[in-house]
Amino acid sequence: MTDRGAAGLAALGIDIGGTKVAGGVVAPDGTIVATARRATPGASVSDTEDAIAAVVEELADAHAGELVGVGVGAAGWFDRTGDTVLFSPHLAWRNSTLRKDLAGRLQRPLWVGNDADAAAWAEYRYGAARGSDLALMITLGTGIGGGMVLDGRLRRGSHGVAGEWGHMRVVPDGRLCACGNRGCWEQYASGTALAQTAREVARTSRAAAGRLLERVDGDPDQLTGEDVAALAADGDPLALELVTEVGQWLGQGIADLSAILDPEVVVIGGGVSKLGEMVLAPARERLDHALPGRGFRPGPRVVVAELGAHAGIVGAADLVRSEVAGLSA
Amino acid sequence: MTDRGAAGLAALGIDIGGTKVAGGVVAPDGTIVATARRATPGASVSDTEDAIAAVVEELADAHAGELVGVGVGAAGWFDRTGDTVLFSPHLAWRNSTLRKDLAGRLQRPLWVGNDADAAAWAEYRYGAARGSDLALMITLGTGIGGGMVLDGRLRRGSHGVAGEWGHMRVVPDGRLCACGNRGCWEQYASGTALAQTAREVARTSRAAAGRLLERVDGDPDQLTGEDVAALAADGDPLALELVTEVGQWLGQGIADLSAILDPEVVVIGGGVSKLGEMVLAPARERLDHALPGRGFRPGPRVVVAELGAHAGIVGAADLVRSEVAGLSA
Repeated sequence: MTDRGAAGLAALGIDIGGTKVAGGVVAPDGTIVATARRATPGASVSDTEDAIAAVVEELADAHAGELVGVGVGAAGWFDRTGDTVLFSPHLAWRNSTLRKDLAGRLQRPLWVGNDADAAAWAEYRYGAARGSDLALMITLGTGIGGGMVLDGRLRRGSHGVAGEWGHMRVVPDGRLCACGNRGCWEQYASGTALAQTAREVARTSRAAAGRLLERVDGDPDQLTGEDVAALAADGDPLALELVTEVGQWLGQGIADLSAILDPEVVVIGGGVSKLGEMVLAPARERLDHALPGRGFRPGPRVVVAELGAHAGIVGAADLVRSEVAGLSA
Repeated sequence: MTDRGAAGLAALGIDIGGTKVAGGVVAPDGTIVATARRATPGASVSDTEDAIAAVVEELADAHAGELVGVGVGAAGWFDRTGDTVLFSPHLAWRNSTLRKDLAGRLQRPLWVGNDADAAAWAEYRYGAARGSDLALMITLGTGIGGGMVLDGRLRRGSHGVAGEWGHMRVVPDGRLCACGNRGCWEQYASGTALAQTAREVARTSRAAAGRLLERVDGDPDQLTGEDVAALAADGDPLALELVTEVGQWLGQGIADLSAILDPEVVVIGGGVSKLGEMVLAPARERLDHALPGRGFRPGPRVVVAELGAHAGIVGAADLVRSEVAGLSA
């Protein structure tokens, strides 16, 4: 059952991250007209669902008009129907029936899926990938998320789990990853990668890492990607070097994805993308040197996401709206 | 201008390899009813075009019925229109106007494109990928070729050069590749990879490589992938080990492609695929261990190509037939 009039109504978007459940009421033009958030209650699946329901209730109560439905994006691997969270490298879900559980509690039309897929869709509909025939989204946060829009449709592979390029292997026998493998791309190009290299440097040379260690009372294990990002923004040479290295790994991975998929545009989102050209300039430089067939073929445009931290909310809301309205997504 | 009746007519398919130009008349059911071939004249582009024209003439003269057109697949990177060969790691083409040149000479409807794309299409239409919603083709020959069929359409990326997964980097600072980069997948999983590792072993230990060296008068530099394949088929332990290693690299790359694209089926073609389970068994074993999210998500089926050496001919012919008939391809 579809309702084309739904395309003109607001929808509710939810983004479930490792630390918070963030929601927003999203108008058909992509603007967010109200927001709410709750802390994500650690490793408990049912507590996370409580937090989602609380955010939905708060926003539905506050919003005067009709809401088409609820879109929920989460950092998990979903099956093709969106019914089941198969796996999450960074959260507790293993074969969870998130969609069924939420449908029972919320009693509204639902879209449930991967957070980076939602972000990719938002950037395609309203942001940096508008009008592109093949756009890849790369979200650089704790790990790397991914989404792909081809010919105006979100593409999720044969089993629902395409776009997990954070887990392509870029270094044989490399760094251990939360997914259980070694050498995954996200261990070299993400906030976690920034933190890990910073800790290695600090353990090897306390002198070289002096300013970083000041931020954590001298304990290398406490260093985070945010510490490195803050110092890089402040011009610290070591922090800048670490950010440049992450940018180079980003560019190498984009070269690999370009050999495989040949996208028109690659949109960089997630927390690390806030560093802007500090990360993107070395990424583009590396891409120019590493793109197979360079000089004889065009590469992708590499741009920063336009919707920032709200892309997941906007995309999830628009995906449930498109589904109810019977539009292709 | 389209002609739906064309779907019922035979078409001519041409496959341009490094050593030969092979052609065939292909019936609408995918069977080849006549063949012809010429040697590929080395590094000369115009001589290669002469050879193509000769094969077309011979087949057109021999075939009594109407021919819809000519499909030409070549080991090059084509732009999106198929008008221009941008680049070829293994042949002389650099920004060549192959399509225009052939159109002037042949005066028939043409499809011109990548040989592995043609093979992928053939396996989707008539072979191991029939009915699949997302099929990847991996041709293991001198290098690695690739093609992708999604939702019944060949996908070639935004600029025409998708599917070049032979050039994703799998080893930082790894083996030098014909594309100019280092560490490309095709340097570890192809006929060239077999030969290179065999030469390394033979130089390091003539005793260990005794049977291999017998085939080449004791000169390691003369060893080819065919030498290794022949000895492996004969049960030689060292040759089997080298083939197993190539299979493991194949499986690792399929794991990476599965993280990125999540295909339903991966079809292995090209000369090396003739080794069958000797290569595929270690590939599947490696894939089982390396697939990100394994145990929580399905992986692709990994199968041998059904159309063998003729896939390029069959696919190119069917692509020009589909184009003339106005069918999606």
